[in-house]
Amino acid sequence: MKESLAMNILIVYAHQEAKSFNSAMKDTACAVLAAAGHQVIVSDLYEMQFKATADRNDFARLGNPDYFKYQIEQNIAYDHGMLAEDIRIEQEKLRWADFVIFQFPLWWFSVPAILKGWIDRVFCTGFAYGGTHKFYNQGGLVGRKAMLALTTGGPDNMYSPTGMNGDIEKILYPIQHGMLYFVGMQVIPPFIAWSPARVSPEQREHYLLQYTQRLQTLETTQALAYPPLEAYDDTFQLKETH
Amino acid sequence: MKESLAMNILIVYAHQEAKSFNSAMKDTACAVLAAAGHQVIVSDLYEMQFKATADRNDFARLGNPDYFKYQIEQNIAYDHGMLAEDIRIEQEKLRWADFVIFQFPLWWFSVPAILKGWIDRVFCTGFAYGGTHKFYNQGGLVGRKAMLALTTGGPDNMYSPTGMNGDIEKILYPIQHGMLYFVGMQVIPPFIAWSPARVSPEQREHYLLQYTQRLQTLETTQALAYPPLEAYDDTFQLKETH
Repeated sequence: MKESLAMNILIVYAHQEAKSFNSAMKDTACAVLAAAGHQVIVSDLYEMQFKATADRNDFARLGNPDYFKYQIEQNIAYDHGMLAEDIRIEQEKLRWADFVIFQFPLWWFSVPAILKGWIDRVFCTGFAYGGTHKFYNQGGLVGRKAMLALTTGGPDNMYSPTGMNGDIEKILYPIQHGMLYFVGMQVIPPFIAWSPARVSPEQREHYLLQYTQRLQTLETTQALAYPPLEAYDDTFQLKETH
Repeated sequence: MKESLAMNILIVYAHQEAKSFNSAMKDTACAVLAAAGHQVIVSDLYEMQFKATADRNDFARLGNPDYFKYQIEQNIAYDHGMLAEDIRIEQEKLRWADFVIFQFPLWWFSVPAILKGWIDRVFCTGFAYGGTHKFYNQGGLVGRKAMLALTTGGPDNMYSPTGMNGDIEKILYPIQHGMLYFVGMQVIPPFIAWSPARVSPEQREHYLLQYTQRLQTLETTQALAYPPLEAYDDTFQLKETH
């Protein structure tokens, strides 16, 4: 183990059942990453009863009580230390983190509501984008990496480009590009355990072995190639030269 | 007005501010649709303080207290009348509805958490898919239509196929195909008000006029062409003949 590779790793975990495969993946990550010398902390959203709904209660005072716009209030509250404590705690974890793993079951081809609420509330204007930052490769969380670690209900062929559920790349695009890359994180390819509820115990073990290998090679896994802001022209279109 | 065209229309509305453009779109829809002879009801999710998080509290009793899996508990609770009352009320509205409009601001390239929670909790196994139903064109809500009515932060060119935020069709696919069509609803093209916070009052008025025209032609607007289950082979791949 080279000391220089040690990372601070945050796992944002969204499953209700300690005996679930999502929980096994989370526990595997904690053990494998700690053994490799990394520091790991877990935000267990259901255990924390993390508030999902973004509303007025997230701010100690409103900048504009006559017209409530969440993103504007985020920016004001962030600048003046008036964000709800649960949001500030999660933002502190993100400041500390070099790498963020999102562990969740794919529900309705997206993240469960409790995890969407974590994004809505914690990726706050002024902190994660906007204010003194921009977005994408100039977002507020630049310098960090992220990875989705997820389970599906259906088998992998349902999620192929010609599959019944549609291409998994297309399904994850709003999350990987629109949430994680938007705030400046480099996104490495997802680790997907296909249909763990419907495969054999041996296949589930194999998933955990494959996941272990991925966890041991996080630093060298190539990030998804999303264009930087500089690749777009004044009308926000990708330049042909890129 | 022809009596035979009158529909029952549910608007699922997710914005916190009564003076917002989302609210103006919702109010326009209520007025225009009522004037056309339709019955309209609104589920105002923030006003209702609709619970977003899918958890154990959604069930009066658990089928398997030793291993909590939300979708399995949904099916058991649905069959035995043990679903939380707020879920049952929303399902009753869906049974009544011929057409469902989802009115929301696009947050993080998806629906706000409170609306994702409505999907997670109300589109219950046994009711919206699974059990005696399948999914897609054989889902539990077959015979109904749906439409997204949304606002964005950025202008439309940011959401073109070569735009900085990616193709809006790709961004909405997990919602339109994965949530609405999955439960059997026919999805008509979205109505999108681009960046209402950054355009002129005249442009905002123009959006409401365009939206009015759409609302007056809901019945004749062609649904998005998603393949039926029969178009896929045994390995869930689209048949070449389709």
